[in-house]
Amino acid sequence: MRPEEDAYGQAMLDHFRGKEAWEIVERDDGFFMISAGPELYFAPIENWREAERKVMKYVRGRVLDIGCGAGRVALQLQGLGHEVVGIDLSPAAIETCRLRGVADARVMSIDDVDSSLGTFDTIVMLGGNLGLLGNRERGRGILTKLADTTSDEALILGASRDRTESTDPDIVDYFSKNLMQGRLSGQGRIRIRYRKYVTPWFDFLRMTVEELRGLLTGTGWRLRETIPSDDSLYVAVIEKDR
Amino acid sequence: MRPEEDAYGQAMLDHFRGKEAWEIVERDDGFFMISAGPELYFAPIENWREAERKVMKYVRGRVLDIGCGAGRVALQLQGLGHEVVGIDLSPAAIETCRLRGVADARVMSIDDVDSSLGTFDTIVMLGGNLGLLGNRERGRGILTKLADTTSDEALILGASRDRTESTDPDIVDYFSKNLMQGRLSGQGRIRIRYRKYVTPWFDFLRMTVEELRGLLTGTGWRLRETIPSDDSLYVAVIEKDR
Repeated sequence: MRPEEDAYGQAMLDHFRGKEAWEIVERDDGFFMISAGPELYFAPIENWREAERKVMKYVRGRVLDIGCGAGRVALQLQGLGHEVVGIDLSPAAIETCRLRGVADARVMSIDDVDSSLGTFDTIVMLGGNLGLLGNRERGRGILTKLADTTSDEALILGASRDRTESTDPDIVDYFSKNLMQGRLSGQGRIRIRYRKYVTPWFDFLRMTVEELRGLLTGTGWRLRETIPSDDSLYVAVIEKDR
Repeated sequence: MRPEEDAYGQAMLDHFRGKEAWEIVERDDGFFMISAGPELYFAPIENWREAERKVMKYVRGRVLDIGCGAGRVALQLQGLGHEVVGIDLSPAAIETCRLRGVADARVMSIDDVDSSLGTFDTIVMLGGNLGLLGNRERGRGILTKLADTTSDEALILGASRDRTESTDPDIVDYFSKNLMQGRLSGQGRIRIRYRKYVTPWFDFLRMTVEELRGLLTGTGWRLRETIPSDDSLYVAVIEKDR
């Protein structure tokens, strides 16, 4: 990620430095929205969604936080004594993590996770970060690799959104086109904008619980349970499929 | 303004209907920001900036509210017994005004204001709406026409921003280029985005007090006083130059 592409990381870094910051999401059909904003990436656990707080009880051992952002989850788990490796594609996000005290934060793509990082007992992908699986094909490849870099009892704790109940025509139309093209319902091609910063286009995946169950099949993982959250968000507890 | 161009109006209408709404500003150099948001367009007078509240004492007689948005100023003045005509380029903004009770709200460009609307004693262009003057040439034309459609004692109460003190490189660079091209410092070519709605590109003008003084010269108006507000905003009281 080149400096001028580091939109969400710069927004976090600016927020950390006390400047007003925002995060704009552009979808490839010309739909623009704003995200909940950098503030969410800094929230202490008291301000997390209940489902995310609840799932913390499943965390054990050595943790990989994929898409660690400004480090809210990494800091929480590190404070509880876990060894945590936080990875994010954004250099500015990782800089923010380090400034905030995350001991092991690395600029790394989810695609590059392998056994060189050691073995993990818990993988966290909260705040919708199951979306980083991208699309069906990419998601399967990543999940298979994650199975190889985790212990037998390992869990993935990940959040996604089921938008299939939405009545918003801009969501319904986009997702209908996905299904007609054989994609998972909530696959979206987006990029993030902040000031003049703009990320490359990337696929971000939202899925129903059933789609997630299907995606996991054959990757070495299976769905243990899901905890519904506000509106369309849910947190999934994913275990090894032995 | 075609329906798919009505970005800020649709954001207002959605906000009025209780939906989450936002307003994204895109500048022609690829700079993206978010505005203060639709909420501001609905604020009751208690929540206005102090300078805007203060200037209300100058309002007299028949009022033209240019760029009336969701009608916050029009509703306030109408409530005080003034006859108010609110105009806005956005059909959805005007619909919002009507739903909120503005008695005379019309879809009309600032360029089309003429004596067919009758004579006004006060013109309000608050919330930064002096920006609708666009650029030096267009601004002079509009001001000259406004002089012809107002009474001898008429005032323009208008707000703008002086951004020349900013240290933000993205503002400094843009404004420096303006000055090198002989433009007023704060002229910006922008468009507004909300969901899939996007306005056409338009010039939005921010000026220093001295630039405003110069712009008025020869248009039939002169600057009487300015009231500084928070950060870069100021409210100008403009009177007839007889």
